[in-house]
Amino acid sequence: MENNRTNYMPAEWEQHERTLIQWPVRPSLVFPDHYNLVRQGYVEVIKAIAEFEKVTVLVNENTLEETKELCKDKAELLVVPHNDGWCRDSGPTFLWNSAKKLSAVNWKFNAWGERFAHYDLDNEVAPRVLEHFGISYINAQIVIEGGSIHVDGEGTLLTTRECLLNKNRNPQLTIVEIEEEVKRQVGVSKIIWLNHGLFGDETDGHVDNVACFAKPGVIIMQTCSDPGDPNYEITMENMEILKNSIDACGRKLELIQIPQPPARYYEDIRLTLSYLNFYLVNGGIILPVFGEDATDSDNKAEEILKQVFPDRRIVTVDGMALIKEGGNVHCITQQMPKGIR
Amino acid sequence: MENNRTNYMPAEWEQHERTLIQWPVRPSLVFPDHYNLVRQGYVEVIKAIAEFEKVTVLVNENTLEETKELCKDKAELLVVPHNDGWCRDSGPTFLWNSAKKLSAVNWKFNAWGERFAHYDLDNEVAPRVLEHFGISYINAQIVIEGGSIHVDGEGTLLTTRECLLNKNRNPQLTIVEIEEEVKRQVGVSKIIWLNHGLFGDETDGHVDNVACFAKPGVIIMQTCSDPGDPNYEITMENMEILKNSIDACGRKLELIQIPQPPARYYEDIRLTLSYLNFYLVNGGIILPVFGEDATDSDNKAEEILKQVFPDRRIVTVDGMALIKEGGNVHCITQQMPKGIR
Repeated sequence: MENNRTNYMPAEWEQHERTLIQWPVRPSLVFPDHYNLVRQGYVEVIKAIAEFEKVTVLVNENTLEETKELCKDKAELLVVPHNDGWCRDSGPTFLWNSAKKLSAVNWKFNAWGERFAHYDLDNEVAPRVLEHFGISYINAQIVIEGGSIHVDGEGTLLTTRECLLNKNRNPQLTIVEIEEEVKRQVGVSKIIWLNHGLFGDETDGHVDNVACFAKPGVIIMQTCSDPGDPNYEITMENMEILKNSIDACGRKLELIQIPQPPARYYEDIRLTLSYLNFYLVNGGIILPVFGEDATDSDNKAEEILKQVFPDRRIVTVDGMALIKEGGNVHCITQQMPKGIR
Repeated sequence: MENNRTNYMPAEWEQHERTLIQWPVRPSLVFPDHYNLVRQGYVEVIKAIAEFEKVTVLVNENTLEETKELCKDKAELLVVPHNDGWCRDSGPTFLWNSAKKLSAVNWKFNAWGERFAHYDLDNEVAPRVLEHFGISYINAQIVIEGGSIHVDGEGTLLTTRECLLNKNRNPQLTIVEIEEEVKRQVGVSKIIWLNHGLFGDETDGHVDNVACFAKPGVIIMQTCSDPGDPNYEITMENMEILKNSIDACGRKLELIQIPQPPARYYEDIRLTLSYLNFYLVNGGIILPVFGEDATDSDNKAEEILKQVFPDRRIVTVDGMALIKEGGNVHCITQQMPKGIR
């Protein structure tokens, strides 16, 4: 068989055709009273991305008008019914092959281990989008959210045991079966398993709040220097794992650390704030920042990313708006790579 | 990327887990008055296959009882609504990888170029079956029927221009796009294009009535020696093409000829009779024969296949029963390879 027919998930830093975003759904917010603030957060992100690439916003019929009003000419709107607003998790995972012919994976979606009762529409988001764009896709027989996996595009995938092996996702599959299925569907040969995601992350520890690839062989982590913070131990353990890992190409990993923002609470809930929830767009980075007592760490994060990605322009957005919905920039976005449809 | 993640369609001669068959649907028959005869034909085929491997019959709710009655313990029944009886065409195309992990392609199905008005249920047969068996599958964005493609399992696919390039299938795609998409979905690197299928074949010339692989590098054709028969020119042309073709592995092709049965008509329609519509099962061959004035060619066909497949036991079935529905053994069957689910 020819090798070049293999489909695999390209890294986020590859050129995008567009970004997909699901418009937020008021009752599904972690803090529903903050719907207006969350919408403002979405609009800020959409405008920021639109400086770099096309944005397609998936809307429910009943929010079509408000979205039109708020996004104006910054986004193309597409009616795709959904229960909740996280295109990273309920959207498609795009693949391409060596000729950059696009395909995709439609994972099964169960609302982060059935944390919410209604996810039938979200489970249909990926196929509806893919049929719209005429992209062939695999219906994988495994529950996975896009936010739980990062790839380097050269055969390595980064994830957490806390999420991928959680019994609320695929209780019928063994660890080996999950590993094999994920490798097969996104075309990787090596999985690097971190143990846990951020403390209190209601996704069961999505990797996209703790670490990501900057390029093949280089990983950015969010670190915690306060031994009294529950994220300290989590981070130390993950760092130890990464220091001892090699990737699919046999490389040892270089680690870049970004200090976490100060702990912040809302209604007694520790917010899962992470600079790692930034999103790479064509020539840019959309970086959530948290202001107030986080200004120093905000600046530090931006500075580090500027060094890591000297060719990208960083646009910061208010991460405190989106967090009222429950996540941040990376969680609400999904890249469609620029390939052949 | 690792080569061994590539999914491809195995040849029909690989071990099967089971055979899938869709129970016939009376109003969809080419000759609906012959429903009883067609059912008898199905039962004969099901019993013949059951001597070699498991059979799963897909039934509509309203034929569940009659199917139970007629198939008894020879088949497992599965309620999967369908408009018509051709599992080769509306069923899944199974793939596996080097580890024999199963996956599948769900082609778009449009009832042979919208020859019939209702095909919504048939278009859902493949996904329903695959969800039932828990096999991940690609939703291809191209109209293809299983009967229009044969593969050798080593990178080569055999088809006809008459069908695959027909404007009633994928008018929006160029020839190059169709070729690339077929290659990509079934994991082949070379397509051998015959021009036409049998004269009068209402599928627009499905290859499974004109030629098939016996093994990699060896092709069996049905030939016609009467220059006054419209199949003469068709066959001569296809033979010329095959003589000048090389496969994905660079082999020239060896050709084995099976003479066609005498021309036969029913209600002024030339029946598309073909020995090439046989079906390979585990250790056996289910061969349609046509009796009466075809007895000599029936015997000849059986004799040739015995030489080509010395390790397989041939069971002949009454090809004149199924042809009243419009096709034959290969058209009503679909193999699920024996792999890892």
